[in-house]
Amino acid sequence: MTPETVAAKLPPADVLSDQCPSREVLNRMTTKWGVLVLLVLYTGTHRFAQLRRRIGGVSERMLAQTLQQLEGVGMIDRRAFEVVPPHVEYSLTPLGREAAARVAALTGWIEANLPALVQSRAASDM
Amino acid sequence: MTPETVAAKLPPADVLSDQCPSREVLNRMTTKWGVLVLLVLYTGTHRFAQLRRRIGGVSERMLAQTLQQLEGVGMIDRRAFEVVPPHVEYSLTPLGREAAARVAALTGWIEANLPALVQSRAASDM
Repeated sequence: MTPETVAAKLPPADVLSDQCPSREVLNRMTTKWGVLVLLVLYTGTHRFAQLRRRIGGVSERMLAQTLQQLEGVGMIDRRAFEVVPPHVEYSLTPLGREAAARVAALTGWIEANLPALVQSRAASDM
Repeated sequence: MTPETVAAKLPPADVLSDQCPSREVLNRMTTKWGVLVLLVLYTGTHRFAQLRRRIGGVSERMLAQTLQQLEGVGMIDRRAFEVVPPHVEYSLTPLGREAAARVAALTGWIEANLPALVQSRAASDM
């Protein structure tokens, strides 16, 4: 089957079904690090080391795995430059930019509402 | 410290910092099941068993843990009814509704763009 016929045969997408491929896309985007990678790349192209510095707490291994997962669903473009020393740049595809916009809306909301969210947590820990 | 003074002392929120409390809120919301729980409760109040039926693949244990995590950041209201047989209802708080709206925008986008996302995956698996 070509990718086109795969797409044509899909039933209506439903992330609530564990049989629907949309669930896997959701899981790849909403890993602990996937959200943050999309968020940083939304601000522009980054090299691997730059991404790693920008995202507090991510390990080299988890960052590499996250980038691969997002590349696999067509959200990230990986470009290797055959220069000395060689380097690799990551950027969002048009699809990735659309996804990242939704992620940025979510993280922006969390940041803007953090005082209320932290109060709730403090109250529930009492 | 009261919750109010905790909130007043926060530096600007930044999910990219692993020291910022917003990172923990993000992690609780974007677990494998957190996103789906918010999405279902966005459609209305549910009992535990109803939630479990609605979310394909979730175990009783993971659902209970996810509900607790979201309750802990003030997004979910848990009401126990002392009737025979006793039952518990879960609904979104006003804060939870705002969060769920962002989550629904993200999952709606994935569902609407699934053909393109699946084509990318099929192409990258070749």
